[in-house]
Amino acid sequence: MSFDLSSLKYDANGLIPAIAQDAENGEVLMMAWMNAESLAKTLETGHVTYWSRSRQSLWAKGATSGHMQHLVELRIDCDRDCLLLKVTQKGPACHTNRRSCFYTLVEDGKEVITAEPMT
Amino acid sequence: MSFDLSSLKYDANGLIPAIAQDAENGEVLMMAWMNAESLAKTLETGHVTYWSRSRQSLWAKGATSGHMQHLVELRIDCDRDCLLLKVTQKGPACHTNRRSCFYTLVEDGKEVITAEPMT
Repeated sequence: MSFDLSSLKYDANGLIPAIAQDAENGEVLMMAWMNAESLAKTLETGHVTYWSRSRQSLWAKGATSGHMQHLVELRIDCDRDCLLLKVTQKGPACHTNRRSCFYTLVEDGKEVITAEPMT
Repeated sequence: MSFDLSSLKYDANGLIPAIAQDAENGEVLMMAWMNAESLAKTLETGHVTYWSRSRQSLWAKGATSGHMQHLVELRIDCDRDCLLLKVTQKGPACHTNRRSCFYTLVEDGKEVITAEPMT
């Protein structure tokens, strides 16, 4: 079956959540949002482009920071309302300069920071 | 720092996306939604409970199917608006009876089904 961008289920704002996972070691790096245009751009260029909800514009990941994500594999979930991107991440994925955005662990009712910013 | 459920950033519907990842092999199994109540229940019982948007009610994963998720680790992202759950998944996570919901691969403009339902 051909893949049709319009066959995905976008939310009321035309967005779909996209999980970025390190293609090599399986680490979940971040979750961000895409619209049809950003996904088309990602597929066309191989460089992951999200939709920035705060800036209301396309967000070519790493365009400013250099911390680009190269798309290795795109997967769709059963409900067609979530994307899984397997990526090669250059440097940190997180804006705090950590590899993954999920550096805060909840343990015994406390928050524990499990990674320091990359230098 | 103590973990406070109300410190998370929920959307306009009081929901936060939660990614479930196999704690053993790192496979991303599914993405679903939680509200504060379902997260509290998850932390209290150790059994992952989501919020069903279609049924508008708590969804104790596996309560009907037996395909429960046991919470191994909870992580919060940098923006506090997404959760990562590392889980032990009993049987399939997907309602189609597949291990993961992300069984559809997009390759060269085509959709490829990469897993069959578990028997």
